Amino acid sequence: MNMLEFIQTRRDGGRHSEEDIKAFVAALTKAELPDYQVSAWLMAAFFQPLSLDETTWLTQAMAASGETLDLTGLPKPWVDKHSTGGVGDKTTIVLLPLLAACGLTMVKMSGRGLGITGGTVDKLESIPGFRTDLSPDEMIAQARRIGIAWTGQTPNLAPADKILYALRDATATVENIPLIVSSILSKKIAGGADVIELDVKCGSGAFMKDLKTAKALAQSLSEVAKRCGKEVHAVVTDMDQPLGRTVGNALEIVEAIEVLKGEKGRFRDLCVDLARRTLTITGKDPRLAGELLDNGKAFAKFKEWVEAQGGDPVIADDPSRLPVAPVIQEVLWQGDSGYAARVDAGAVGLAVVRLGGGRESKADRIDPSVGVEVRIEVGEPIKQGQPVFRVHAASETAAQEAAISLESAIKVSPQPVEMRPLVLAEF
Amino acid sequence: MNMLEFIQTRRDGGRHSEEDIKAFVAALTKAELPDYQVSAWLMAAFFQPLSLDETTWLTQAMAASGETLDLTGLPKPWVDKHSTGGVGDKTTIVLLPLLAACGLTMVKMSGRGLGITGGTVDKLESIPGFRTDLSPDEMIAQARRIGIAWTGQTPNLAPADKILYALRDATATVENIPLIVSSILSKKIAGGADVIELDVKCGSGAFMKDLKTAKALAQSLSEVAKRCGKEVHAVVTDMDQPLGRTVGNALEIVEAIEVLKGEKGRFRDLCVDLARRTLTITGKDPRLAGELLDNGKAFAKFKEWVEAQGGDPVIADDPSRLPVAPVIQEVLWQGDSGYAARVDAGAVGLAVVRLGGGRESKADRIDPSVGVEVRIEVGEPIKQGQPVFRVHAASETAAQEAAISLESAIKVSPQPVEMRPLVLAEF
Repeated sequence: MNMLEFIQTRRDGGRHSEEDIKAFVAALTKAELPDYQVSAWLMAAFFQPLSLDETTWLTQAMAASGETLDLTGLPKPWVDKHSTGGVGDKTTIVLLPLLAACGLTMVKMSGRGLGITGGTVDKLESIPGFRTDLSPDEMIAQARRIGIAWTGQTPNLAPADKILYALRDATATVENIPLIVSSILSKKIAGGADVIELDVKCGSGAFMKDLKTAKALAQSLSEVAKRCGKEVHAVVTDMDQPLGRTVGNALEIVEAIEVLKGEKGRFRDLCVDLARRTLTITGKDPRLAGELLDNGKAFAKFKEWVEAQGGDPVIADDPSRLPVAPVIQEVLWQGDSGYAARVDAGAVGLAVVRLGGGRESKADRIDPSVGVEVRIEVGEPIKQGQPVFRVHAASETAAQEAAISLESAIKVSPQPVEMRPLVLAEF
Repeated sequence: MNMLEFIQTRRDGGRHSEEDIKAFVAALTKAELPDYQVSAWLMAAFFQPLSLDETTWLTQAMAASGETLDLTGLPKPWVDKHSTGGVGDKTTIVLLPLLAACGLTMVKMSGRGLGITGGTVDKLESIPGFRTDLSPDEMIAQARRIGIAWTGQTPNLAPADKILYALRDATATVENIPLIVSSILSKKIAGGADVIELDVKCGSGAFMKDLKTAKALAQSLSEVAKRCGKEVHAVVTDMDQPLGRTVGNALEIVEAIEVLKGEKGRFRDLCVDLARRTLTITGKDPRLAGELLDNGKAFAKFKEWVEAQGGDPVIADDPSRLPVAPVIQEVLWQGDSGYAARVDAGAVGLAVVRLGGGRESKADRIDPSVGVEVRIEVGEPIKQGQPVFRVHAASETAAQEAAISLESAIKVSPQPVEMRPLVLAEF
């Protein structure tokens, strides 16, 4: 391929043909392209975004650039679920057993957290013994047995995306919708699922801060996934306040367990909402979502899952066996009484990273026991002196620092404030 | 420096500080920056052009990135002349001896031709024995003796520009005014001259095809050069028809010699115009320009120059000693009679490249003897059957091919057509 012409076409807002994009991805995968040309193309694509057609071709070519998971033999439909990540987002840990209990085959690879965005792998690793490194064969075998194929170890799926993402990360070309879409979907398609539930998080605790961009991303994900022949449903959900009442790895496992046991609240509402949509797409009764949380079947499937992956299933009934932080400190509201107008997910996420519960850079190790319980929601009345956070820290100093930084996460209004809607848009 | 932030700033249309630009150029020169980051920055700069301040800082930092020519001891003012290049542009070969004869110290490094744009080095190399590889010390010594420091060998001037240019060439980021300006001026500034005459060519035979872009480049060159403390004059001149009556290396030397001997015409007009402007800036009498062409002093200086650089000075009086092509073929006008509305410099330049008189890629060797005489100018009446070109070729076949391709270079109008102005804009 003529890479210089390919860059020029992009730069001038022209249109790549499907053949050109295939040739680009093939050359990229074989490491035949100088990375300075690839990064120039990426920056050109930042300013002259790929069309839906071009994004679809790029997605398909990247999906085909390496191995694909062979799910043949597993009961259909094969369902994947993807969230763009946020603060306190433990949805996968509830949805996988819940939907598997509903009879779906759940196929998912999760990642580690970076920055304020937590990662499912880190959360599940706080369960003693839980294996996050299943091979593709082990995943398939487990899915056949219990309906859940999950690993934190990514096989050689979409290697072209890995090459491209590493360059984007180093060249300020991450924040571009067509490139984000093709990166997410190429891995999902190589992962084999034919139904995909996409949750685009929006707000201070998410990658997408404003609703307009989040909607554009969700719409584009939905459209391109359909063009790739996938059944897909994309929602934009609120991530301006933390999701649920805990942020931190072991703490979030405990909360997920409570929801699997039937605990009500905003986080359960999101899980039920997403599950209902997936059940509807796959032709199942959406009412199962709530029922199986209430009747213990989702919880039973969770225990089955933990045991299947080598984890200690006793934690499901006795969460005190999970890592526990030595210092617990209440944070009381010092400001005026009124109504909570803001509980800033970004600020809470940052406090947890500083406590050691998240990574500032990829090499950082994390402490599974630390985190923050969030005891106030936007819209609730708030009184001076009321507990608003509970900090779980490795030391008194760390707890104290977190407590101070958390105070600014809350804004209070003297007038009543509406609860924030959970689902902001759907496509 | 933080290169990722530097890219982000550019991408988002922010402003680099002088310190940031200095740090960027220093790291670039020391090869400390991954080229994929530099090329991402270049593409960002393509879409978010550098401001005049930023361009000035980049120019100065690149000028200071390597050696600078030490002209101390030479009579002031030190004058450089730069053309953006075109078809039949042999201006340097006339201006250097002319202005040196006027008492100025001319300091210039020239390059080779690429594509339809000829190069002064290739032209002068058609003079038997002419050395194009003077060292900086030899240049200074020669300038002290005869007022002309010229070489085709570029010392290690502005190495940061060389690095950046190589990347621009490979990443479709050449066509960007601030980057062009800093590339041209950084070398001029490192070359030491304090007066610079800039000739921006515009038209089908030049890099800049349209007047608006050419004007913007000339204005920006002029403004940035002034901010760098240089006396500068920039003009936009016509390159839509070939400059003068010859295109081809030895042929252009012959034409330059004729003009130095007093031949009149459009090409002499440009030389006189540029010389007058330079003489005016440097406080000399502009009338010297025409006088010294007419009274033989410029011609005498040319012979002195050729001899000083090891060339055969007899060619000045007997141009038949220059390389001569074996085949000469007249091209007669086959179309309707009328007035020449177009003599396409791009088409003539391309014909000369195909004859072997120019390079399609940097490694190509050229034939100094071949070329095209242009015997018609825009605005002149033209009759069917009249000779319009004379092709100098290495073979009958090559001559025939050139003759055919040249026919389409001319467009005729039944109504009288105005002559094209030579100088289109000045700054």
